[in-house]
Amino acid sequence: MQRKTVQYDYTISFGDCDPAGIVFYPNYSRWMDASSVNFFHNCGLPPWREMQKTHGILGTPLLEIHTKFHQPATYGQTLQIYTSVSEWRAKVFIHKHVVMRAQDLICEGEETRVFCIQHPENPDKIKAIEIPEEVKRLCEFESP
Amino acid sequence: MQRKTVQYDYTISFGDCDPAGIVFYPNYSRWMDASSVNFFHNCGLPPWREMQKTHGILGTPLLEIHTKFHQPATYGQTLQIYTSVSEWRAKVFIHKHVVMRAQDLICEGEETRVFCIQHPENPDKIKAIEIPEEVKRLCEFESP
Amino acid sequence: MQRKTVQYDYTISFGDCDPAGIVFYPNYSRWMDASSVNFFHNCGLPPWREMQKTHGILGTPLLEIHTKFHQPATYGQTLQIYTSVSEWRAKVFIHKHVVMRAQDLICEGEETRVFCIQHPENPDKIKAIEIPEEVKRLCEFESP
Amino acid sequence: MQRKTVQYDYTISFGDCDPAGIVFYPNYSRWMDASSVNFFHNCGLPPWREMQKTHGILGTPLLEIHTKFHQPATYGQTLQIYTSVSEWRAKVFIHKHVVMRAQDLICEGEETRVFCIQHPENPDKIKAIEIPEEVKRLCEFESP
Repeated sequence: MQRKTVQYDYTISFGDCDPAGIVFYPNYSRWMDASSVNFFHNCGLPPWREMQKTHGILGTPLLEIHTKFHQPATYGQTLQIYTSVSEWRAKVFIHKHVVMRAQDLICEGEETRVFCIQHPENPDKIKAIEIPEEVKRLCEFESP
Repeated sequence: MQRKTVQYDYTISFGDCDPAGIVFYPNYSRWMDASSVNFFHNCGLPPWREMQKTHGILGTPLLEIHTKFHQPATYGQTLQIYTSVSEWRAKVFIHKHVVMRAQDLICEGEETRVFCIQHPENPDKIKAIEIPEEVKRLCEFESP
Repeated sequence: MQRKTVQYDYTISFGDCDPAGIVFYPNYSRWMDASSVNFFHNCGLPPWREMQKTHGILGTPLLEIHTKFHQPATYGQTLQIYTSVSEWRAKVFIHKHVVMRAQDLICEGEETRVFCIQHPENPDKIKAIEIPEEVKRLCEFESP
Repeated sequence: MQRKTVQYDYTISFGDCDPAGIVFYPNYSRWMDASSVNFFHNCGLPPWREMQKTHGILGTPLLEIHTKFHQPATYGQTLQIYTSVSEWRAKVFIHKHVVMRAQDLICEGEETRVFCIQHPENPDKIKAIEIPEEVKRLCEFESP
């Protein structure tokens, strides 16, 4: 049995780089987030705007991120981001993102996230929920 | 003796927030980076574009970040980022950023950074250097 | 009688600049948008998330922008954005933004915007509305 | 004879959208800029960091942009940006970008740009140059 991993490709733009000529690092978090959304879409989940209507789910905000940067990258280069879920707990899951440029490891990130809904008592707040079993089932393993 | 801490204020924009109505989290890294540059400026260091001419220094790229998100924030709210250096090693330093919204702790980040120059053998690469003693001296403690 | 003008200040970050060392130009649109929201806030309008509850208003999306760039700017420099409404029509208004760096004109932008609500027949779409008279009254002129 | 047009595809991310659930409009400028760099790359020009070594060229900063927004778009949707040069003058060229979502016209932009080098008398400034004839030749028409 193998953990499901979804690949997301991104070609770095000129404007993603800073005056040192390399990727401005917060962009790696942006691309990991895009790869997270792409992961769930690839697993068969509808966009959050549909999940909001059916399950009240607004998205998967972060509790924690931990990223290691191994090598700089620059514009015109294409990155491959390999995204999986390394752990499912009751209300929390851990995303693992490995960012490669062909054979070169560029950076690796671990994100701790929750599924959240609008807070029932205060529409300006959000609230973590138990992760629906169907979500786990869809996302957990490679279909054979 | 007290470690030098520099405050950076930022008012969250509409465009900094995502469809869930809260700050899109990579923006916290952008503001921590802005607060890092502001920290060094406040310590008396010239901008990197000047440091490049005098010391060859291009900036302080990251080896690692670790951020914990405690509460969401939204547009129109003003954040206070308190930035310090918690550790200086020979080639590496640790930045600590505490992001508050008045009394509320929003998030906390730790960044491992190096000072870097253009690689002497390959102008497309960068290279970490020993942190200059004058930099450490300027940044280390509150002036009494 | 003088048209109301609101000033918004922003200090350029390292990460706002591109490998040419100057502001990556889409950021000027981001700051003009921030200055637009700040303009309405300064006129006494509540945030869009409150306007949504009371008037259904989601924000002021754009029909058109036209920007002229006069001089480049770089990180560490502080910009002053002077924002006003140069014309109110029934459903459309024209925003004027003048971006200065002290005495230097950096860029100027004109934005054509509408006030919009969720589309009554399709919650995934938005719809322009007649601009409420109270909004025009609040925003039109300097209080004496 | 047909003007050369290069297509650039981009799938909108969750984080590209604002609290109204639609693309935060400065992102369209970011993607047009990415499509501009992609256009020149597709025409056979090396990246600006190589052009800087051989021709001193830092990039193609903007003098003016003019964008019309026809329909909003949201995350998960893929855009096709069709980029061409509608006019070459001695020092200035006009980029045309048409942004489609399959058959739907999302927005159109016109950009006035120059090729620039570091200012010979002040390394902190940039200077427009005559557009090299070889650049025009490479970019002007579809290869038959």
